[in-house]
Amino acid sequence: MSATSAGTGPAVPDGPLTIAQLAALAGVSTATVSKVVNGRSDVAAATRAQIEELIRTRGYRRQRRPTKSAALIDVLFHELRGVYAIEILNGVEEVAREHRLGVVLSELGGRHVPGQDWVEEALARRPVGVVSVFSGLEPDQTERLYSRDIPLVLLDPTGDPDHDAPSVGSGNWNGGLSATRHLIGLGHRRIGVITGPDRMEASRARADGYRAALDLAGIPADPALERHGNFRIETGRDLAFELLRLEDRPTAIFACNDGTALGVYHAAAKLGLRIPEDLSVVGFDDLPETRWMIPPLTSVRQPLKEMGAAAARMITALAAGETLPHHRVELATELVVRESTARPGGR
Amino acid sequence: MSATSAGTGPAVPDGPLTIAQLAALAGVSTATVSKVVNGRSDVAAATRAQIEELIRTRGYRRQRRPTKSAALIDVLFHELRGVYAIEILNGVEEVAREHRLGVVLSELGGRHVPGQDWVEEALARRPVGVVSVFSGLEPDQTERLYSRDIPLVLLDPTGDPDHDAPSVGSGNWNGGLSATRHLIGLGHRRIGVITGPDRMEASRARADGYRAALDLAGIPADPALERHGNFRIETGRDLAFELLRLEDRPTAIFACNDGTALGVYHAAAKLGLRIPEDLSVVGFDDLPETRWMIPPLTSVRQPLKEMGAAAARMITALAAGETLPHHRVELATELVVRESTARPGGR
Repeated sequence: MSATSAGTGPAVPDGPLTIAQLAALAGVSTATVSKVVNGRSDVAAATRAQIEELIRTRGYRRQRRPTKSAALIDVLFHELRGVYAIEILNGVEEVAREHRLGVVLSELGGRHVPGQDWVEEALARRPVGVVSVFSGLEPDQTERLYSRDIPLVLLDPTGDPDHDAPSVGSGNWNGGLSATRHLIGLGHRRIGVITGPDRMEASRARADGYRAALDLAGIPADPALERHGNFRIETGRDLAFELLRLEDRPTAIFACNDGTALGVYHAAAKLGLRIPEDLSVVGFDDLPETRWMIPPLTSVRQPLKEMGAAAARMITALAAGETLPHHRVELATELVVRESTARPGGR
Repeated sequence: MSATSAGTGPAVPDGPLTIAQLAALAGVSTATVSKVVNGRSDVAAATRAQIEELIRTRGYRRQRRPTKSAALIDVLFHELRGVYAIEILNGVEEVAREHRLGVVLSELGGRHVPGQDWVEEALARRPVGVVSVFSGLEPDQTERLYSRDIPLVLLDPTGDPDHDAPSVGSGNWNGGLSATRHLIGLGHRRIGVITGPDRMEASRARADGYRAALDLAGIPADPALERHGNFRIETGRDLAFELLRLEDRPTAIFACNDGTALGVYHAAAKLGLRIPEDLSVVGFDDLPETRWMIPPLTSVRQPLKEMGAAAARMITALAAGETLPHHRVELATELVVRESTARPGGR
């Protein structure tokens, strides 16, 4: 049916109609048609019915968009869970607002490498850059970004060897050291640790800091007190059960993130152990909810918002053609002492 | 200095240089220049220095980007706090991925209406639509979106009268009713409530559901047991203190969101009241962390992820020129009973 329509009404070509064409055909204003296609309620029923009938029979197409593209920054998360992601996003948002950049959020459904779909879409979006959080790109994906002049900054790199992109992290090793030193200073000698995923640089650094603190204090490491976790609450609880049921159980546990520490709280509650009287607990991240745990958690503060902001600033600097002063930015961690740690109970 | 440079080296015009021009001048590949401008480490020091010197003296400009624009959906939050936002984002992401849309995230720093900056940027981005979460636009801002054929869908509207855009919510009134009925069914008669912000529709509906449940059970409402909160943990704690210090204190509290319920836990802990033996608590939202409260919280589940997905689907339908079957979508809430509620203790 490609014959031209002629003479019988306004001169409107065949095919789907734009808002202006719908308005001409219906004899109403474009504002009214716009209200109908945008789903608003404040249009008379008869007018709405007339316009919807036109759309049903002829089809509707959005007006062609001007070609000016908006400035965007892409943020890639391996998964959107909990407040960790929100804190980082807040930091990115802050810098993006200064630079009038839109923040595009992508989530990899728990995978640490995006699919080709994501790369195609990112290339079509042409952001000023990509911040990749605890995830990485395959080398060919990175090359495709670089070939389009789109810089990449890693936040909490996974540690895969092909990642030579600029990165942001925090003082994880120092954090593990100060958490463990705090417990040693309180008089603990049997200090358990529940680590995070082995493949994550940040996680390995925290556990190494723990081992260094013990070694520097002349306390022999006991492999029975080390458990390999994955930053999940359930796993923290299950591994804490194992530690707390040992014949010679630890009097303190360093949990390598706050979720793991919450799992330790649950294990302690089930076993009737009081925190901190019977068990001291230190977490890592210091998410906003830690001060609302009962008792409030002693934790190593990681400046997640600042880390997000630093990564975004590296992107805007690279996009402006500036040279980065540092290829790797590491922000300091800080131990925040609350009520979950005390001297070992009278044993 | 607008004289043309001629004859002395490669034919490169004055002004900032593109990657291709930098590569020609430096006698290296574009890949190498790209590595330098993208901040990567795997470039020989001398080459890096040469290119950076060129950038320093001549300047660098990004290659002009093709004009094809990517398809985006904008999500506007009044604030990015806690897991509530993450759950909604996950739902939007899911639908966006199906439709190959990039999700652009904006945060209003706690305000409920965006500034003009945001509108300008959104118009420049030309998303297929905007999902506005617990925030709204001024009428003129809405008109500017509509005039560009950009539909708006509200999620948890603030209840301002000018909002006639399509919206998504959940069965808040029913949720308040079933939370309170659950407590009445356990034998509670003195049931306190800590509400959310009065200006939010969802919040008012929950409190009305509470009052209706009391009324339907023939229990006279006691104004002394109603406290007006704001969904924050601190406020929940402070108002719970007030309720629990009453001469004739409530045996149960309906907290109108999970954060408020966490505040109630803190007040109870400080006063030495055990949950649920001395005090039953019901929350609202059923965020993932509620099952990790000690004891796990009975809460009204709000399908936040599904709400985010529904709002995104309304946008894609409107963008495709379809007529929405419903101007207002309300998803069902459901009471999830855990361990924070029990019969009133032996008083």
